Amino acid sequence: MTTCYINGKYKPLSKSFVSVTDRGFQFSDGIYEVIAVFNGEFVDLKLHLNRLFVSLNKMNMKISLNKNQIIRITNKIKKTNKLEMGIIYIQITRGNQNPREHKYSDKLKPNIVIYSIKKNFEYLNKLALKGVKTSLYPDVRWHRSDIKSISLLGNVLAANHAKKNKSHEAVLFNSRNMITEGNSSSIWIIKKNKCITHPLNFRILKGCTRHKLISILKKNKFKFEEKKFSIKSLIKADEAFMTSATNFIMPIIKVDKFTISNGKPGLNTLKFRKLFIAAI
Amino acid sequence: MTTCYINGKYKPLSKSFVSVTDRGFQFSDGIYEVIAVFNGEFVDLKLHLNRLFVSLNKMNMKISLNKNQIIRITNKIKKTNKLEMGIIYIQITRGNQNPREHKYSDKLKPNIVIYSIKKNFEYLNKLALKGVKTSLYPDVRWHRSDIKSISLLGNVLAANHAKKNKSHEAVLFNSRNMITEGNSSSIWIIKKNKCITHPLNFRILKGCTRHKLISILKKNKFKFEEKKFSIKSLIKADEAFMTSATNFIMPIIKVDKFTISNGKPGLNTLKFRKLFIAAI
Repeated sequence: MTTCYINGKYKPLSKSFVSVTDRGFQFSDGIYEVIAVFNGEFVDLKLHLNRLFVSLNKMNMKISLNKNQIIRITNKIKKTNKLEMGIIYIQITRGNQNPREHKYSDKLKPNIVIYSIKKNFEYLNKLALKGVKTSLYPDVRWHRSDIKSISLLGNVLAANHAKKNKSHEAVLFNSRNMITEGNSSSIWIIKKNKCITHPLNFRILKGCTRHKLISILKKNKFKFEEKKFSIKSLIKADEAFMTSATNFIMPIIKVDKFTISNGKPGLNTLKFRKLFIAAI
Repeated sequence: MTTCYINGKYKPLSKSFVSVTDRGFQFSDGIYEVIAVFNGEFVDLKLHLNRLFVSLNKMNMKISLNKNQIIRITNKIKKTNKLEMGIIYIQITRGNQNPREHKYSDKLKPNIVIYSIKKNFEYLNKLALKGVKTSLYPDVRWHRSDIKSISLLGNVLAANHAKKNKSHEAVLFNSRNMITEGNSSSIWIIKKNKCITHPLNFRILKGCTRHKLISILKKNKFKFEEKKFSIKSLIKADEAFMTSATNFIMPIIKVDKFTISNGKPGLNTLKFRKLFIAAI
């Protein structure tokens, strides 16, 4: 049984409910975070909580909990659910509004949900040694991907396209055939010993794993550039990989029918993965 | 007290809940419809139910209820809640999924919610005699507005921009400064006795009121064209108006600081509104 924090109470997840008038349910008017727990320890907890409050600010939402209170709840969930390997899921919506209306009232009380999900990181570790297949999908998401919102239907359609194609992740491209992100990851290529990923703007999320990898690259004096790159550049890259809170650094060996380089995980990619895991 | 249908049961709205693992709540993975009830009668019930099933199909969702069963529930809600003037709200999400994952399982049982909201159509009638102010906002929505989904955060931000500017509706424009839709309406202009609105494609919803007005225009031999038009064309139009299930046909007299024509509701617009109300 998983325990879930909901608006000040701890309940079984199966008995954790929100009103059908919740604006998250009716309008996707809310935000979320996913924080990995690896060997019983949080990964980048502060980065994720900082981003949570950035998202709240961008959404003009205020909550009565501060970061320390969220850390206490998150710790309690981790302990109660005996979470060794998995993620903490935090979702905050603008609150219940009745009658339903697109325009939101400033007086709503946000609904806060925090629970945990076990993850098989051992499986992901084995997958990283083989590398993953990905599928291309048009980036039909809304234009404020910088906010980690629950307005995720574009991501869902993309992820499901990947599922149908037996791919691990969908790689999204815009109307100019430039890669933006994965359906729930940042996408990277390595070309001539330089790491390249999409620059931060409204169209992509400031990934915490992305952020941490940049520090690792700088520390190890590996060349790095934030620059848009095309589908063609991805296919012709020396190495390609994705970063996310649960995948850490995951080598990409295929993009639909196209094989990246020799079809094996890139050596730099695997080195970065080791350095990342060592740092957590 | 409002009665709400939820997954086969009738409950007070205040006691109608969904699981926090509902994919509508976590991913905006669901669709909805709003059907007006005017003088105790449904407006365009069949058009809305047809569109509901179009949305379900586009989302690859199946429900166990057929149209007649939904009509029976909808009638019961209307009767129980003594609804004379207002709307029926229908929301269907893909169902509960645990553990959370972007990719959806094909075995989920959709959550179905149907309730009613009273509306002051008398107020809207008076408003129509004065016309409404609107505000421009960039169209940051996802690129499948043809699906009436609950992935509405772009619409919410736009509506709230309108609220801040004391506007009735936000008018959305794309990166080429062309008008797409309102935050919850279709937008129309009249220029040289011709009605113009955005053509049907992935970027706009096939509005039921839009659809019905087109029939009225054809019947009355009023010139009509589905064509993209710019912000400039909107501002310089002879008349402008919006259509939606609750606003019916609502004259627009201002777009931010710009006054449309003489600042009064257009005569054709008011005529169309009368014809529309006579037809329901």
